[in-house]
Amino acid sequence: MREISIGLIGFGTVGSGVVKILQQNKDILEARVGLPVRLKRIADIDIVSDRGVPVDPALLTTDAREILEDPDISIVVESIGGYEPAKSFILEAFRNGKQVVTANKALLAEHGPEIFRAAHEARVDIAFEAAVAGGIPILRSLREGLVANRFEKVLAILNGTCNFILTAMSENPGISFDEVLRQAQELGYAEADPSLDVDGIDAAHKLVLVLSLTHGIRLPVKSIYVEGIRRIEPFDVIMAREFAYKIKLLAVIISHGDVVEARLHPTMLPEHHPLARVDGVFNGIYLRGDMVGEQLFYGRGAGMGPTASAVVGDVIETARNIIRGEAGRVPPLGYPENWKSAGRVMDMKEIVTSYYLRIQAMDRPGVLSKISGIMADHHISIHSVVQKRRDSSGTVPVVFLTHLAREADIQDACSKIGQLDVVEGPLMIMRIEDENLA
Amino acid sequence: MREISIGLIGFGTVGSGVVKILQQNKDILEARVGLPVRLKRIADIDIVSDRGVPVDPALLTTDAREILEDPDISIVVESIGGYEPAKSFILEAFRNGKQVVTANKALLAEHGPEIFRAAHEARVDIAFEAAVAGGIPILRSLREGLVANRFEKVLAILNGTCNFILTAMSENPGISFDEVLRQAQELGYAEADPSLDVDGIDAAHKLVLVLSLTHGIRLPVKSIYVEGIRRIEPFDVIMAREFAYKIKLLAVIISHGDVVEARLHPTMLPEHHPLARVDGVFNGIYLRGDMVGEQLFYGRGAGMGPTASAVVGDVIETARNIIRGEAGRVPPLGYPENWKSAGRVMDMKEIVTSYYLRIQAMDRPGVLSKISGIMADHHISIHSVVQKRRDSSGTVPVVFLTHLAREADIQDACSKIGQLDVVEGPLMIMRIEDENLA
Repeated sequence: MREISIGLIGFGTVGSGVVKILQQNKDILEARVGLPVRLKRIADIDIVSDRGVPVDPALLTTDAREILEDPDISIVVESIGGYEPAKSFILEAFRNGKQVVTANKALLAEHGPEIFRAAHEARVDIAFEAAVAGGIPILRSLREGLVANRFEKVLAILNGTCNFILTAMSENPGISFDEVLRQAQELGYAEADPSLDVDGIDAAHKLVLVLSLTHGIRLPVKSIYVEGIRRIEPFDVIMAREFAYKIKLLAVIISHGDVVEARLHPTMLPEHHPLARVDGVFNGIYLRGDMVGEQLFYGRGAGMGPTASAVVGDVIETARNIIRGEAGRVPPLGYPENWKSAGRVMDMKEIVTSYYLRIQAMDRPGVLSKISGIMADHHISIHSVVQKRRDSSGTVPVVFLTHLAREADIQDACSKIGQLDVVEGPLMIMRIEDENLA
Repeated sequence: MREISIGLIGFGTVGSGVVKILQQNKDILEARVGLPVRLKRIADIDIVSDRGVPVDPALLTTDAREILEDPDISIVVESIGGYEPAKSFILEAFRNGKQVVTANKALLAEHGPEIFRAAHEARVDIAFEAAVAGGIPILRSLREGLVANRFEKVLAILNGTCNFILTAMSENPGISFDEVLRQAQELGYAEADPSLDVDGIDAAHKLVLVLSLTHGIRLPVKSIYVEGIRRIEPFDVIMAREFAYKIKLLAVIISHGDVVEARLHPTMLPEHHPLARVDGVFNGIYLRGDMVGEQLFYGRGAGMGPTASAVVGDVIETARNIIRGEAGRVPPLGYPENWKSAGRVMDMKEIVTSYYLRIQAMDRPGVLSKISGIMADHHISIHSVVQKRRDSSGTVPVVFLTHLAREADIQDACSKIGQLDVVEGPLMIMRIEDENLA
């Protein structure tokens, strides 16, 4: 073996970043692997547009089979994203005995079991550090460095677009979600169709992958509670600030023995919480292991450089494994398939946490008593009530912070409160992660 | 192979933590490895004292050879610390074909090349994640997850004792180093002989290991600039606060092409720097990679649980490698021996940074002009001067913050200033990591 040849399928942002690193850091990569790492071929449907990285035109092809069928190529980097043709390419790479590196969280979250099984059967490896939190080596840390721990709690900011929007709303009190989204789109931090990000789907894909590593539980995204950030109003941001909270879109994993909470939604966090300071497009993962205690990982969760850094990190690890002769040795240790499931995911209705409730209600005597009466009937203990301003329409937003309550009770109570004729419009329910409210 | 047998040499704090994890998390470790991990033997000179973990007395021995010569044992955990007999035990384990896991930073920093060469020759592995930053998987992240990057900058808080002391001094303005040290000793956060910690030696050992991974440079500790925290006075802490700085004992690694700065000393950091919020016994590593940008790793850097978490993480990785049949396959990829050296470490006199200078001077006309004249002669540009209080003795502390200056110029100027008859006692020089002073 004189070199490790890789083929790149997908010459978009991540693919260009991979090419850039392989060129720019060629010397250190060779030193750290022990052999040259050679990019032999790049496939994309568009081989004409300038990507800002110099590439020998002879490397380019529009036919992915020129990579998948090349016996010289031992590692295939899939960076096209989405379900098809990415999935077919990956499965064919496996059949041809090639190792695969990918950042494709959607594909792995939805079709992970099938893909990991195929890798296992073909005795090859699939590496996917870049699928979660971009350049932060969190998956490897969960699987290796922290492997001795039971993970009691993981709270994670995994979508840079949402965090950018929430940070901007927090720093410019009064600005609307729509206005910030428009700015994010202009700056390139949000897609033209932002729903994958702002509706929480992208972060939920990542949550599914993290949960498989922390608890050995594989779930389809649709069985997890997912709520995006569209419904957050400037008023909620202002109230959060008054309570010394920040609003973050959080992936939440909390262990209770054999049962685990796994949910994704906007969450109020105390300002002094380490994640409250993870702002802008940054990602952050806070975790608590039974042995290691608290940890925080912080860094850029998206973008060309950070994502490509993780992809090339996986390429290097895979190359090292090929050189050592261990790539794809079954069983693929470290994959969730080998982990014993810690049990089931808790039904959302069973969870117990604290809540922020915003209720638009008539400003007249007896209203507060009616609302709080319903809460009492549902065993909801109120920590504080704030009635913020008088509205010309005759209704005012009233905000409740609750002590620990059951989600089912909150949902039932809110449904009843919403039916009161003194209450207007839908209620806003936001969960709070604050041990002081317990 | 039906199980992985390990032997533990050293039943102190870390060793007890290892035993505790192997007992308490037996089920998840087996699931994550694929085979049972069995603690077969524990050697210590004291096998009588209660460690707070239940152990079958039949496992205990005072003779390390019962581990080193046991053909069943494939992984030896060395947790006695110090140079001897730890080194001899490790070398004998290698000769007997055993993999080694250790947290022994002093030994690896001082005798790393010899130990790694011996592992290489014996075709076994040595793992040492626990040697730096306790439970934070930073070494593995540098070597694997972030391996695609050139490391432009690493700033790290690597000694929990010093960070505890500096945090307490910052939170109780006016309290002396000696007083806080005494408290730390009472709380068990500092040793009876604290010099390994407070003089920066322990953190320097860790810096040497980090530098070998980030830059492939192996240096003895004595060739690195190391300054501890004993000379910091309450006045310095109060001044830091006025300038919106925090004082941290930092390991500093900064790349300049083929030359790299590597130094360890108290450093003033802006309060908004991510490391400024790493308080108490916590460790933190801030780094900037050319591709990945900024990252922060934060967690407990010492103590039974966090250190044992890292040790057992290495045990699990080693066990996986044994099962895959790849443990110790030469060359030991990922070890610094395989890395191309990025060049030489910069002479301390060559470094350029900003400085905090505290000068005890007579409070009379012309003094400031004399001092600042000497600075001007040495090309030192002053950012600000603060004369804080009048002292009954007739001298006052005068504080200068400088723009970027050469260390050699600062040392020369301070030496000249110290000789002025209007200046009393030694000057305090502290480096500042603040891009706004550039």
